[in-house]
Amino acid sequence: MGKLMRRLSTQEPNFKQVFKDLLAFETVSDPELLKTVDQIIADVRQHGDAHVLKLTQQFDRHPAHQFSELELTQEELKAAFDGLTTETREALELAANRVREFHQAQKQDGWTYVDALGNTLGQKVTPLDRVGIYVPGGLASYPSSVLMNAIPAHVAGVAEIIMVVPAPSGELNPLVLAAAHLAGVHRVFTIGGAQAVAALAYGTETIPAVDKITGPGNRFVAAAKRAVFGQVGIDMIAGPSEILVYAEGKNNAEWLAMDLLSQAEHDTVAQAVFITPDEQLLNDVEQWIEKHLEALPKAEIARTSIVNRGALVLVKDRAEGAELINQVAPEHLMLCLDEAEEMSQDIRHAGAIFMGRYTPEAIGDYCAGPNHVLPTSGTARFSSPLGVYDFQKRSSLIMCSENGVKTLAKTADILAQQENLDAHARSARYRYQD
Amino acid sequence: MGKLMRRLSTQEPNFKQVFKDLLAFETVSDPELLKTVDQIIADVRQHGDAHVLKLTQQFDRHPAHQFSELELTQEELKAAFDGLTTETREALELAANRVREFHQAQKQDGWTYVDALGNTLGQKVTPLDRVGIYVPGGLASYPSSVLMNAIPAHVAGVAEIIMVVPAPSGELNPLVLAAAHLAGVHRVFTIGGAQAVAALAYGTETIPAVDKITGPGNRFVAAAKRAVFGQVGIDMIAGPSEILVYAEGKNNAEWLAMDLLSQAEHDTVAQAVFITPDEQLLNDVEQWIEKHLEALPKAEIARTSIVNRGALVLVKDRAEGAELINQVAPEHLMLCLDEAEEMSQDIRHAGAIFMGRYTPEAIGDYCAGPNHVLPTSGTARFSSPLGVYDFQKRSSLIMCSENGVKTLAKTADILAQQENLDAHARSARYRYQD
Repeated sequence: MGKLMRRLSTQEPNFKQVFKDLLAFETVSDPELLKTVDQIIADVRQHGDAHVLKLTQQFDRHPAHQFSELELTQEELKAAFDGLTTETREALELAANRVREFHQAQKQDGWTYVDALGNTLGQKVTPLDRVGIYVPGGLASYPSSVLMNAIPAHVAGVAEIIMVVPAPSGELNPLVLAAAHLAGVHRVFTIGGAQAVAALAYGTETIPAVDKITGPGNRFVAAAKRAVFGQVGIDMIAGPSEILVYAEGKNNAEWLAMDLLSQAEHDTVAQAVFITPDEQLLNDVEQWIEKHLEALPKAEIARTSIVNRGALVLVKDRAEGAELINQVAPEHLMLCLDEAEEMSQDIRHAGAIFMGRYTPEAIGDYCAGPNHVLPTSGTARFSSPLGVYDFQKRSSLIMCSENGVKTLAKTADILAQQENLDAHARSARYRYQD
Repeated sequence: MGKLMRRLSTQEPNFKQVFKDLLAFETVSDPELLKTVDQIIADVRQHGDAHVLKLTQQFDRHPAHQFSELELTQEELKAAFDGLTTETREALELAANRVREFHQAQKQDGWTYVDALGNTLGQKVTPLDRVGIYVPGGLASYPSSVLMNAIPAHVAGVAEIIMVVPAPSGELNPLVLAAAHLAGVHRVFTIGGAQAVAALAYGTETIPAVDKITGPGNRFVAAAKRAVFGQVGIDMIAGPSEILVYAEGKNNAEWLAMDLLSQAEHDTVAQAVFITPDEQLLNDVEQWIEKHLEALPKAEIARTSIVNRGALVLVKDRAEGAELINQVAPEHLMLCLDEAEEMSQDIRHAGAIFMGRYTPEAIGDYCAGPNHVLPTSGTARFSSPLGVYDFQKRSSLIMCSENGVKTLAKTADILAQQENLDAHARSARYRYQD
């Protein structure tokens, strides 16, 4: 055993560069892929259902002969739900209820106020009319993703939630359909890839155009989402999953090792980083990782992730740890120490912060309540977990009184003249000179 | 006079298609432009300051010989502010104060709650560390844009606000610098184009990399923002400006005509649409538009906009008007009727709603308080005005108690097994079986 995982210390002279290189992960845009995706979008816009059906037969080897076979009924969703074992059904229900409870706290309301001049100003908050949720098919077809995307939309008050999920060879994960039933998805189409994104963005004869598309997918899906951004809203383009565990004091090294491995098993390019000022703990965690790697069902994936992108980092102290965390802006952050809440005050950038020794990241993936769709690749510097706010939007409200407008109109007149916008100035002037 | 502007009626058999065609505005992505922009970004990443300086000399004919000449000092900003006339200074201050007051109401705070199991859940809200604001140069260099972008960032608590503004031939609008002083901009570089966006996104020797870039620009700037999206956050890619005026009852047709012209003078592709159930008012507004078009300094621009993209639409009644408005999802909406507030309840999609006869859109551009950066081209269906929320982000907080975690860990264990994620299941299991 030993030396599977990269070891770093902030005391090494070249640490900064090595750490920066470790974090670097750039998705290279492939011009061929972009061209393919652009062509698919153009064809779906032109030929609608027929082209979506054709590509679904071709790429997914789906046995459907006509487009109508690609839509599931609410009865089919309910049947999948009713077919769950009691244990699974109860687990899914508990998860859905907790996710709903947390997201209800995110719901925003509008407000207005009257200014000193007697004008009313405010912000109106409304849900999106219709959203599309992309759920990957095959092995990565996760029921938890259905809950995490559909429930915030539902809480926001979105009138129509349309889910797309590819069914390779016509096969579907019944748990995904059960989750769609539980989360209140309105329509489900068994399509995927860039063609599903194009159909949602522009609409076809059967699929109504949506206002926003969320949910993860492969590189075709990601490229298609980027291409339709502007026509519809999109959530972030997700990168590989990451976890950063910071620990000090009394900790069970085996638990921490498994927490790190739980990210590594997701993907060969997932990133698991352990930071501690405690060298003995670093050694212990390393040993447990190596030991458990032997036995994991997804050992190959996890090993590649751990070897290529994992790291054990020794820091001087907690402050240095916090500094590195802010530099990483991790998707998932575990703070395993007695003073976790205190330390969290110093964390400026993280998707989700799991505090204390009894808060494994895995519960956040399923049932803690907060969303598991989180900003990756350092984008927590400027973005947020998926939330109800992604399915609401705001409109400004302005209503001036006949007297209240005078000061504002005078001001607008002066500034519009400075910007050489004469019609602006005149339009304002009418309201205080008349 | 007469028949300059397209006239539509919902009673015409082909109205739906004609109205849809009227709204259509697709930015064609130009592969040559994208290639140029990608090359500029790659070169700025590789050569930093030197390349930014070179392109600034080349494209902006800027007389600077070294990069340091492209940064303005706080003293220069203050001098510009001190040089304003009293009237202009007071107008700018009133605008800044009102924008600040409105945006303070948007500031969001974090929250936590303890669930029935004794676990703490919450949402932490933090400002972005550093943002870049793009301000166009030359004729479209608007001081109001500086206020509208910088003040929300300032209110959010952004630690460093960096403004870029191109200075063609080295010339700058002093009012833009005065606005930067007033809005609390921390650093200003006189650069523009794709090279400025690249420098902000990736940083150079002199310019620190920012976390988000906001502000309007030409098609090179828009393409560059789209290209760096993911590396940094961006605001929306703005399309041409639009206004939709709905009026009924007692109204001054001349005022309404000027309100419509105030958008038309912005841009040849700007869109001004007037909707009313009152045919006489439609005729009157048309006449006033034609009359004032003669005399406007920007008559050529406004005329092209009015002829190519404007429309006068006769509707049956208010309900039909509201339906059309929701279909358009206009950037600016004026509701000029006694029951404006009541009608606003039926509006689901609009960037900003100006209510009543004493609320010209022009005051919203400068000093009403709400932001003038608004979703265009129907994107109000899924996006919001620029706001403090664009400069804040959220992190989820989860802290389980030793007992509280048990139910969650059991649930996560069950669901993780269903998703074939063994390390997830074990990581959860440790917390309830130990």
